[in-house]
Amino acid sequence: MSDTPSKTIARLSTQSSDFERELTQLLAWEGVSDASVQQRVDEILADVKTRGDAAVIDATNRFDRLSVSHIDELRLSAAQLEAAFESLPDEQRDALAAAAERIRCYHERQKPTSWQYEEADGTVLGQQVTPLDRAGIYVPGGKAAYPSSVLMNAIPAHVAGVRELIMVVPTPDGAVNALVLAAAHLAGVDQVFTIGGAQAIGALAYGTQSVPRVDKIVGPGNIYVATAKRAVFGQVGIDMIAGPSEILVVSDGHTDPEWLAMDLFSQAEHDEDAQAILVSWDADHLAEVEAAIERLLPTLDREAIVRESLARRGALIHCADESQAIELINRIAPEHLELSVAEPERLLPEVRHAGAIFMGRYTAEALGDYCAGPNHVLPTSGTARFSSPLGVYDFQKRSSIIHCSAQGASELGKIASVLARGESLTAHARSAEYRIRR
Amino acid sequence: MSDTPSKTIARLSTQSSDFERELTQLLAWEGVSDASVQQRVDEILADVKTRGDAAVIDATNRFDRLSVSHIDELRLSAAQLEAAFESLPDEQRDALAAAAERIRCYHERQKPTSWQYEEADGTVLGQQVTPLDRAGIYVPGGKAAYPSSVLMNAIPAHVAGVRELIMVVPTPDGAVNALVLAAAHLAGVDQVFTIGGAQAIGALAYGTQSVPRVDKIVGPGNIYVATAKRAVFGQVGIDMIAGPSEILVVSDGHTDPEWLAMDLFSQAEHDEDAQAILVSWDADHLAEVEAAIERLLPTLDREAIVRESLARRGALIHCADESQAIELINRIAPEHLELSVAEPERLLPEVRHAGAIFMGRYTAEALGDYCAGPNHVLPTSGTARFSSPLGVYDFQKRSSIIHCSAQGASELGKIASVLARGESLTAHARSAEYRIRR
Repeated sequence: MSDTPSKTIARLSTQSSDFERELTQLLAWEGVSDASVQQRVDEILADVKTRGDAAVIDATNRFDRLSVSHIDELRLSAAQLEAAFESLPDEQRDALAAAAERIRCYHERQKPTSWQYEEADGTVLGQQVTPLDRAGIYVPGGKAAYPSSVLMNAIPAHVAGVRELIMVVPTPDGAVNALVLAAAHLAGVDQVFTIGGAQAIGALAYGTQSVPRVDKIVGPGNIYVATAKRAVFGQVGIDMIAGPSEILVVSDGHTDPEWLAMDLFSQAEHDEDAQAILVSWDADHLAEVEAAIERLLPTLDREAIVRESLARRGALIHCADESQAIELINRIAPEHLELSVAEPERLLPEVRHAGAIFMGRYTAEALGDYCAGPNHVLPTSGTARFSSPLGVYDFQKRSSIIHCSAQGASELGKIASVLARGESLTAHARSAEYRIRR
Repeated sequence: MSDTPSKTIARLSTQSSDFERELTQLLAWEGVSDASVQQRVDEILADVKTRGDAAVIDATNRFDRLSVSHIDELRLSAAQLEAAFESLPDEQRDALAAAAERIRCYHERQKPTSWQYEEADGTVLGQQVTPLDRAGIYVPGGKAAYPSSVLMNAIPAHVAGVRELIMVVPTPDGAVNALVLAAAHLAGVDQVFTIGGAQAIGALAYGTQSVPRVDKIVGPGNIYVATAKRAVFGQVGIDMIAGPSEILVVSDGHTDPEWLAMDLFSQAEHDEDAQAILVSWDADHLAEVEAAIERLLPTLDREAIVRESLARRGALIHCADESQAIELINRIAPEHLELSVAEPERLLPEVRHAGAIFMGRYTAEALGDYCAGPNHVLPTSGTARFSSPLGVYDFQKRSSIIHCSAQGASELGKIASVLARGESLTAHARSAEYRIRR
């Protein structure tokens, strides 16, 4: 790598005395909504809670620039979804169906099962797994309307056995995305409302005269959607508050630099806040990737967005060796991790935190975004430290099962009695003591 | 049941034309923090984020009425925890150890495992399960300091393989609870800080000079703690925002009325907001339970709390038959469900929503609260519609694994290319296309 700072993408070295500060700054992301956003969201939610459909219609007319007078104008029928699917070119329809099938297969493996075991005295303990009754899927409208997101959110819910799937997708200025509707058809969405923003989240969380109340809301959205989801959390379940998308690529120096450059671009093209970072212990290789970036940038359709994102949040990081690369992985806890190395299996047990791990030189992140099978809804901004990819488990919940035999209750009653009295909860103690055999 | 309204506990009937409204009112619970609580919490969190230990010390001195000058005065050593354990009467020490062992055994069964599968072309897909690095456990101080909660929060984390467990417990006016410290010793807590409130949540979420930043915060607390947890959610993981504890007992009319009365009391004695509801299709039986309630109430240590809680939020509900009882279960989605019936197994598959299910006449809820094995941290206020008991899975997360063979990448690349171009994400498409074999 040259020593003059590149204008295109930052170059960092773990050898620099300032590295820790630089890295912290690079990773910093404050997804906090300011007080004015908070207040507007609170007002919209309160209005939807009180006035239901009427509030949803008013907000939709205002924010999406429509002139709707009845909620039925904000519904899409099953026939409309099917028509959208049938209207697609064969190639797109086939690709969408192939992706859906692979996503379904993978998620089938994820299903947790109920279990029980019996103790010597006949007491049975276990856990019963059940699906949610109803889930809501938020799909962004406008420029970030992605059919792949519809598949990734709806299919795990379906596999989980959710009884009813409600999708909301705003149509600003009336713009409808046929691919999104086709994906909803394919994924078995039951009802679609063309609403968005905090008003859609409120409608799903509280229910209105027309929009059924759901048990959990999943799917990405802008700051109003994220703020509204945080506000209704507890009233309904939510998936996560997503930050900008990011990738960390670790290369051993033997992957084609143009492949790596394009992998970084594929992240950076999402939006100006997206983050693409490459780590390698091979300085010459980093220089080659940098040259490939410069060479390929002018050929990109979304060149301006990529340039902005690389300049603001991208980095090529030179580290000492493989073990330092692993430290960086676990420090960053990336949403997407590409292990572009000869033996990725060897590194895998060392990876403690990552949303999805793309192993080897052939596994471009883009394959996982669309059709490999695993979910593309992943924990961002370091939240892979404690969060998982969206999955079947997000659409199910568990109930503990306790079935004491007469003898089991008698023995457990003695222990519970002592502990309850230790906590001064004597009604607890007496309730347990009734079951002790005399 | 008599027709004159009881002063002690409300009696409802599903036959009443007003039943749905009465039930909604009975279940209503607004756990919303008002703007002034929100603002005070925001200020404390901002202060802890900026000033670290100093802010924690100031807030602790103020709210817990202490006069501490160094954070080390707010630490408990491993030796102090062990001493607390050793100081317990044998009976309590043995009961605590027996409970811990049973909780450990049950949770061992809950561990999810990593999995992989290989497709025909050599592509490998799977999911890797890893523990959190560090978890924080909030334990309330004062009157609601429960050693059983320490076991229930810490043991699943331990079983999950969490590397470091940090416990916080306020000691208002310097009051330390030896049973709580003993439980922390038994459960293998690594560090204890005697801090509480929003300042403790802030310290765990952001880290200070002395309190390590954790990846997830679990455990119940007052409205300040709940508000702070909601605010830091995203920065760290949180378990849930708990409402008041509740039980729904379904009786077929053949359980001893005194047992049932005491089971209801054991819920009601928690606090004035706790909720105890009994459902039966046997009106005479309900009257007998009511008589038992009146008879036993004066014998309770916490009579005043129980009276208040039964009067405000308790109910005896007469329903038409078993299937109507099941409808009520799923409508209420109770935290604790006691199926005090002859054949609870027969009802089990019909129960869609409940935190924990106590099967049969012998399984008092109190047994599950302390020592049956399953967790007593359960979804409240109807959130069993979408939430699960605290478990090992709350202290682990998953990473998707995608390892494409050269052939697999080539085939997937074709699908991804079509879909990415459909979304106008052409860098995604080109990244995938590099991997297509020519």
